[in-house]
Amino acid sequence: MAKRASVTDIFPYTDADAPLPHGGDLGAARRLFPDAPKPFIDLSTGINPNPYPLPALPAELFARLPDAAATARLAAEAAKAYGALSAAHVVPAPGTQILLPLVAGLARRGRAAILTPTYNEHARAARLAGHSVIETRESAALGDADLAIVTNPNSPDGRLIDREALLAVAAKLRARGGVLVVDEAFMDVAPPGFSLAGDVGRGNLIVLRSFGKFFGLAGIRLGFALLDQPSAARLAAMLGPWAVSGPALAIGAAALADTAWIEAMRHQLLTASARLDAILIGAGLGIPGGTALFRLVRTPAAPALFQHLGRAGILVRNFPGNAAWLRFGLPRGEEEWQRLQIAMDAFRNTG
Amino acid sequence: MAKRASVTDIFPYTDADAPLPHGGDLGAARRLFPDAPKPFIDLSTGINPNPYPLPALPAELFARLPDAAATARLAAEAAKAYGALSAAHVVPAPGTQILLPLVAGLARRGRAAILTPTYNEHARAARLAGHSVIETRESAALGDADLAIVTNPNSPDGRLIDREALLAVAAKLRARGGVLVVDEAFMDVAPPGFSLAGDVGRGNLIVLRSFGKFFGLAGIRLGFALLDQPSAARLAAMLGPWAVSGPALAIGAAALADTAWIEAMRHQLLTASARLDAILIGAGLGIPGGTALFRLVRTPAAPALFQHLGRAGILVRNFPGNAAWLRFGLPRGEEEWQRLQIAMDAFRNTG
Repeated sequence: MAKRASVTDIFPYTDADAPLPHGGDLGAARRLFPDAPKPFIDLSTGINPNPYPLPALPAELFARLPDAAATARLAAEAAKAYGALSAAHVVPAPGTQILLPLVAGLARRGRAAILTPTYNEHARAARLAGHSVIETRESAALGDADLAIVTNPNSPDGRLIDREALLAVAAKLRARGGVLVVDEAFMDVAPPGFSLAGDVGRGNLIVLRSFGKFFGLAGIRLGFALLDQPSAARLAAMLGPWAVSGPALAIGAAALADTAWIEAMRHQLLTASARLDAILIGAGLGIPGGTALFRLVRTPAAPALFQHLGRAGILVRNFPGNAAWLRFGLPRGEEEWQRLQIAMDAFRNTG
Repeated sequence: MAKRASVTDIFPYTDADAPLPHGGDLGAARRLFPDAPKPFIDLSTGINPNPYPLPALPAELFARLPDAAATARLAAEAAKAYGALSAAHVVPAPGTQILLPLVAGLARRGRAAILTPTYNEHARAARLAGHSVIETRESAALGDADLAIVTNPNSPDGRLIDREALLAVAAKLRARGGVLVVDEAFMDVAPPGFSLAGDVGRGNLIVLRSFGKFFGLAGIRLGFALLDQPSAARLAAMLGPWAVSGPALAIGAAALADTAWIEAMRHQLLTASARLDAILIGAGLGIPGGTALFRLVRTPAAPALFQHLGRAGILVRNFPGNAAWLRFGLPRGEEEWQRLQIAMDAFRNTG
């Protein structure tokens, strides 16, 4: 609108809030490496390359407004799968990304402290919600903020923080009227006992869970906020009815209830990430961290390795702010594994 | 969170903002009329019962993050189909519903004037964005607000306001730094020349277009805001990347480009709404208005007719605030037409 002042009163916007670079953009990769062999292998995300098998999707799911009962069913399955107290503590959304500014807006406007390095959208979302953003590497600094944001396990380094430590931060914030947001996007592949999903009833604590990463279905846009009931009602009111598509409601409810698939996939991903480690270590690279869905590599040769892999038709994630870092997702299928192995062998031999 | 004051600073929430009743809830209809013949006929929405034929939806659309290029393609097709100046004036979203509080938040916080009676979510969304809400039946009263909201053509009465009249309201608002939002959810079936899609470049004017109603695909969650470029960038920043699902991107781009289907469907819906009129008039009912996707009936017998139809397994839309009103959507297929005809004949004979 013409009057910037009125707009920025609610949603401040600067060029610093413009869209950020992300993994998964194969179009950009093809432009960057036009002569690379096809098809491009996308290792630039932390998305499971073995998607949950799609259930039958009747035409009605696409045609009709998403059913209130189906939304309630999905919330109940999510509560069970994630360990929330009840469906009333769960707000389904079309992906966690769209929730970030809304959730940041549930805290009083003030100082947002973000434990970095981490997913770069959190700082942008906090600014959009009107907070001033402080990035910190010290979790001790989180308790003094109005809004604290922690990704656990973290991306890209996989750093995992004890539940007790985070509950202490939450208690400190709660005493001051502050809010802790824990982005558990990769918690599905973490060891048990780290999630705060069961603790949100105390209030001033919001847990975000991503559906698409672990279930390998990032395209359907599904994610969840777990939070105390009054805040859940408020967040649901902002999203309005029908926030999640009919197909996503059906897919999500089926997948979250499929405990056998979930358990088997956790093991499969652990095995796959061990195989990825062997390839990376075999190429002489150090692995400072990761989760079963991605590994972080730190090497002064990172820019050269990014180029080398790109020319071989393999896209990994680089980090403009951390030139020595590369993040590797998991290959899909034996052919992709072989192409990665060959490319890494070639790099070791030339390196 | 525990501190209500801090939360309401940004998103005020009261019980008045709790979810509202809507059409399309067949689960509620089945509970209300447990002995009705099956299947229930849903005439309670304004959604086209003849959905756009789904294109092939490759598994990749569900698995991968929605592609930035696909989002750009959809915005370009929407700009062309709706008559916006360019794709940069178009923000695709997972349905227009989720946009309502965000769009209301693009105006400075103050007085929101809503031309009523209309879609009841607009008032709720304006309150959530921090406005005080005035409902008015006089379009002359809109120009003095900070935010004015008009649904054109309107639901449930189909009231259609001239483009020139709305542009005058927009100009008056613009001069004072106010914003006009025109919800064109049913514009696809209106006569040509009424849309303000081509006028949003002037700023302080936001047009909302719903995809699911005309294309009969409300379940995929797709809608658009058309607005000036700086505001579009701001709104897109709030939604973040990947706001629209992969399947919705593909379906939306195919459907909006299919001008032959669109033209044929407009004629088909006009024919169908004329057939609906004949049934309603034949039953002795008055039709104060509507669009080709629904008709409004006004009769003192509305509560009795709602019950009569419900017992016959036909759900129409009633309005708690207007007991004499019923809104009829279009039946799907000959069998539904026949059941409606028979039920209306029976009502006339008993009435």
